[in-house]
Amino acid sequence: MLVVMNSRTTDCEINEVEKQLKDFGLGVQRSHGKNRFILRISGDCGLETTTVVKTIPYVEKVIFPSYPFEMVSRDYQEEKTVFKVGEVEIGAEKAVIMAGPCAVEGRESYLRAAEAVKEAGAHILRGGAYKPRSSPYAFQGLEEEGLKIMAEARSMTGLPIITEVLDQYSVEIVADYADILQVGTRNMQNFKLLRELGQVGKPVLIKRGMSATIEEWLMAAEYLLSEGNDKVILCERGIRTFETYTRNTLDISAVPIAKELSHLPVFVDPSHGTGLWKCVHPMSMAAIAAGADGLLVEVHPSPKEALCDGPQSLLPDKFALMLNSLKKVAEIIGRTL
Amino acid sequence: MLVVMNSRTTDCEINEVEKQLKDFGLGVQRSHGKNRFILRISGDCGLETTTVVKTIPYVEKVIFPSYPFEMVSRDYQEEKTVFKVGEVEIGAEKAVIMAGPCAVEGRESYLRAAEAVKEAGAHILRGGAYKPRSSPYAFQGLEEEGLKIMAEARSMTGLPIITEVLDQYSVEIVADYADILQVGTRNMQNFKLLRELGQVGKPVLIKRGMSATIEEWLMAAEYLLSEGNDKVILCERGIRTFETYTRNTLDISAVPIAKELSHLPVFVDPSHGTGLWKCVHPMSMAAIAAGADGLLVEVHPSPKEALCDGPQSLLPDKFALMLNSLKKVAEIIGRTL
Amino acid sequence: MLVVMNSRTTDCEINEVEKQLKDFGLGVQRSHGKNRFILRISGDCGLETTTVVKTIPYVEKVIFPSYPFEMVSRDYQEEKTVFKVGEVEIGAEKAVIMAGPCAVEGRESYLRAAEAVKEAGAHILRGGAYKPRSSPYAFQGLEEEGLKIMAEARSMTGLPIITEVLDQYSVEIVADYADILQVGTRNMQNFKLLRELGQVGKPVLIKRGMSATIEEWLMAAEYLLSEGNDKVILCERGIRTFETYTRNTLDISAVPIAKELSHLPVFVDPSHGTGLWKCVHPMSMAAIAAGADGLLVEVHPSPKEALCDGPQSLLPDKFALMLNSLKKVAEIIGRTL
Amino acid sequence: MLVVMNSRTTDCEINEVEKQLKDFGLGVQRSHGKNRFILRISGDCGLETTTVVKTIPYVEKVIFPSYPFEMVSRDYQEEKTVFKVGEVEIGAEKAVIMAGPCAVEGRESYLRAAEAVKEAGAHILRGGAYKPRSSPYAFQGLEEEGLKIMAEARSMTGLPIITEVLDQYSVEIVADYADILQVGTRNMQNFKLLRELGQVGKPVLIKRGMSATIEEWLMAAEYLLSEGNDKVILCERGIRTFETYTRNTLDISAVPIAKELSHLPVFVDPSHGTGLWKCVHPMSMAAIAAGADGLLVEVHPSPKEALCDGPQSLLPDKFALMLNSLKKVAEIIGRTL
Repeated sequence: MLVVMNSRTTDCEINEVEKQLKDFGLGVQRSHGKNRFILRISGDCGLETTTVVKTIPYVEKVIFPSYPFEMVSRDYQEEKTVFKVGEVEIGAEKAVIMAGPCAVEGRESYLRAAEAVKEAGAHILRGGAYKPRSSPYAFQGLEEEGLKIMAEARSMTGLPIITEVLDQYSVEIVADYADILQVGTRNMQNFKLLRELGQVGKPVLIKRGMSATIEEWLMAAEYLLSEGNDKVILCERGIRTFETYTRNTLDISAVPIAKELSHLPVFVDPSHGTGLWKCVHPMSMAAIAAGADGLLVEVHPSPKEALCDGPQSLLPDKFALMLNSLKKVAEIIGRTL
Repeated sequence: MLVVMNSRTTDCEINEVEKQLKDFGLGVQRSHGKNRFILRISGDCGLETTTVVKTIPYVEKVIFPSYPFEMVSRDYQEEKTVFKVGEVEIGAEKAVIMAGPCAVEGRESYLRAAEAVKEAGAHILRGGAYKPRSSPYAFQGLEEEGLKIMAEARSMTGLPIITEVLDQYSVEIVADYADILQVGTRNMQNFKLLRELGQVGKPVLIKRGMSATIEEWLMAAEYLLSEGNDKVILCERGIRTFETYTRNTLDISAVPIAKELSHLPVFVDPSHGTGLWKCVHPMSMAAIAAGADGLLVEVHPSPKEALCDGPQSLLPDKFALMLNSLKKVAEIIGRTL
Repeated sequence: MLVVMNSRTTDCEINEVEKQLKDFGLGVQRSHGKNRFILRISGDCGLETTTVVKTIPYVEKVIFPSYPFEMVSRDYQEEKTVFKVGEVEIGAEKAVIMAGPCAVEGRESYLRAAEAVKEAGAHILRGGAYKPRSSPYAFQGLEEEGLKIMAEARSMTGLPIITEVLDQYSVEIVADYADILQVGTRNMQNFKLLRELGQVGKPVLIKRGMSATIEEWLMAAEYLLSEGNDKVILCERGIRTFETYTRNTLDISAVPIAKELSHLPVFVDPSHGTGLWKCVHPMSMAAIAAGADGLLVEVHPSPKEALCDGPQSLLPDKFALMLNSLKKVAEIIGRTL
Repeated sequence: MLVVMNSRTTDCEINEVEKQLKDFGLGVQRSHGKNRFILRISGDCGLETTTVVKTIPYVEKVIFPSYPFEMVSRDYQEEKTVFKVGEVEIGAEKAVIMAGPCAVEGRESYLRAAEAVKEAGAHILRGGAYKPRSSPYAFQGLEEEGLKIMAEARSMTGLPIITEVLDQYSVEIVADYADILQVGTRNMQNFKLLRELGQVGKPVLIKRGMSATIEEWLMAAEYLLSEGNDKVILCERGIRTFETYTRNTLDISAVPIAKELSHLPVFVDPSHGTGLWKCVHPMSMAAIAAGADGLLVEVHPSPKEALCDGPQSLLPDKFALMLNSLKKVAEIIGRTL
């Protein structure tokens, strides 16, 4: 149940309402966005309670959200969520490009890639220091060393960095270095990790699980918001289907749908979404044309030498060309890049 | 096996080569496209045969296509297939919009829809006279009466018409009326129907089966080409996945992939692909941005009264707005609309 | 809407009721099973009509089936459908084994296979004379010659024969030879074919479409029953999923579900369902243990030489061993084999 | 690469070989099963290395496993893995039934359920103390209190207990109480958790991810074995497909396949696999008939009051009836229950 307060309500008055609600034995969460006049109520929200709550002064109305993801929904916050990461605004008019190699494989190669990616026009640097790998014998990432290299790349380029956090243990250390923490597709329903990330003071990008419905994806984001973190980015990265030509089936329709259902920014990862570098350009065009707020793209200066996901990585020059085209698409739909 | 002839070969010389190949017990099919200097060979294509074939005068080289869809592949024909339907060029620079109601439900309503669709800027009229329905008790289409109404709409608007053919029995009658014959998703592997359509003198649009891989889809098109019909349009219309929010998952990545693997024009049906009219605009943008040669869109003047698929039909005015945006996307990638 | 008649109603009285219903402008279909006291009503079944129909003498009650597949449902007929094919009872206590090679590849080899299959204990012979193949260049079956060979095998072994019918054109000829007509997975929603088969006087086995839900499968069977053919066998044969180790994912749970929802016999095809001969024995055990009324199994005397589907074919001796085990499982659940 | 030692090799000699291999810069892992004469080698296993390794005394042969899951494969250990949990042997002739409510909801109700489940013939008690829930607002389990209740139930019934561990943090505490630790479907690729569990001294049951291929599932188990835990149970629990009638599609074919590829015991969870209590009996029959080494079944004395997964829970008396039938199926395939 959502309690909408009168728009002239003061903080002090909200406190008063909150107290009354708690006295009824209800849980109360305040909206952290612009809509600070909404309270999310948990507990027994039966008819009787509702009737009483409606009579509390300053309470304008009571809403029962249409979806189980309450704080993530447009019912809870009508305007799009916009926030800043360094100088970069996420969810605003300007589409945001996060790019870089799949994994941080070494200092020199990563710095070179970072330079190239910045040169080409990316806004945020990506790179994996902790890698989830289906084989225990595969390269698992440089871990903290990788984070340090990324931090160096940030200093060098001035671009914020995003990297994946694999488990609760490393939330703290990753948050120490990264500007945005990424939840991978295999962790979308790692609820303990989500709760931890809901309490970290950094933005989180949450990838859609490879077999998650759109509703389950938004529910996973609800874990983050319900814990108090409202700087959340949704990222479509392809779902698992019977088609084997592509690594996954990139569900572009998830973009307009997630944007209609939720106020959170929606990104697309065309690299994992297809697994084929030749598809990255057309699918990036498609994503932006369909309204995505940004992209997460794998770019590698020498894909053939990449320790992971080489076949889906773009060369920096192809990436630069792509940004050029994307810019024009963005303009058509009233955005910039 | 494909036999590529010297480019100066005359028809008479090709006949000679063909005779020699047949004398070896091989089957021979001539390319029907611009590449009339390629022959597709069936039968025992072992090492010995290949060696001998290479020595035949006028034979330049012998190719073993990388895919089982030989005539559909770029190995067989490098340039894109382009053909005309009335005044409309398919597969050329100009993206082509086919639009109209899902089903022809009555003379008056269809003519009104046709007028509106033309007004909005569509190039080809769609409409179903024979409807495949999962329930035997659902509306099955007006059949020949529907075809007659569509023909009247063509006269009235000057636009060519496309309609679905459900079975071999009706190929002839549908071909009598329609300018393009459509194979529905449930019929993509109705091989008898495909063979029949391979021999009809009209273009065929073949929808991807809802659980067909891209390779199976191109193999289905191979049935048409192998029977002599080279005016074939591929149409992605969504695949069946675990996601239930959308009716199907529209696989936009199938567009760049099919276009790389094949010389045939590739269209997208965003209406069946999502089942939600709100998604039609963004997904049409995505399709054109990803390189689709055209769209197949459901437009209905009063979707709520539609006997089938109302929820996925656009209103004519929304459709007109959409075409306006699509035009700009088309221009970015060097096309028109 | 289903109209249930008083159990003492005579044919003459039913005729009278039928006339009255038709006078209301309603369509009427009589149950063809044991429940000859049920009428299926199509047309406007609104409140007013229902109220009037209830007052007609001999009408005991009016049912609105819970599912769109009305005549296929248990609402329409509570007892299981049982019918005979030659001496073999389908849907009764005794589980029925249909076996043989995927395709009829030649007279001698088929007769040899038929002999082996009979020897091993099969009740019905299978074999494909018309083959649906994803490539136009693959072996397409011996067609009528194949049917003749199957008929010869029937004379020789005394076993009834089942074979696939690919399209309406060949319904008549296949029905001339075969005892059961099989609808393949790709044709499950070939509605024209279904209507035709609904009017043929022979039993039909309808395979589940590889991407069909259980409801769609039962709806396809409804096409057959609604046209008057009530000798219908449902056959689960594996659905298309992301798993690639098996050719399809055999959905054993479809057996208890289809049997609960419908009165029709339910068979399982473990050969296509897995594509691996090693899985045929365990999955056949699973199918019978889960309550399947029978199996459709590929058996081939020399799988390596098979023109199609060799890897999923059992050798006759392994098949005989399997029947031995199946017999014991059947007994546990109160059946025989 | 696997190095197979001569069967008369002494521990001392193996130490010697191990030293030599390490001197080549290779990683060495000893088989923990009966096959203590096999070493798993990681590092550069090129031709040169292999040639040298073959010449080391006591080395009988060198194997390159056909699959990426080396220690999990039959190449590594031919005989089935068998181990004891309390008095219960897992992977042996006797099929093992683990049963109980989905979640521990309270002391009294759980003890009652445990009693009923024991009475009915179960061998191991199941119950969830930590629950992964797609909504942050749903019941998340009693946590340590739940573990204590389960331990009490163990004392009372004498049955070992199995419960889920959700994250690395709680591995230690769960291991303090439980006899078997369960990895849920959403955690199958939580690699950090797997590594941790590879080092715990307790058996682990790993459920197949709802969108994991059989190969990925076995790779996940490889994480456990490669860390030294060889008491691992594989558990098929249904995969996500387009079918919505069942909660998941229970892939029974995964049983014979996993058993052929791996030496680990394979269990089936028919409750989550179908989500429908009516399907639990037939699917349990199917699982045992297909060769499963055991089952994980939800049983609840009053399913309607269950806080989670009531619709898929069996009543104790239905469960007892089922065990009776399963016993007979087990006997047919040379097992007991």
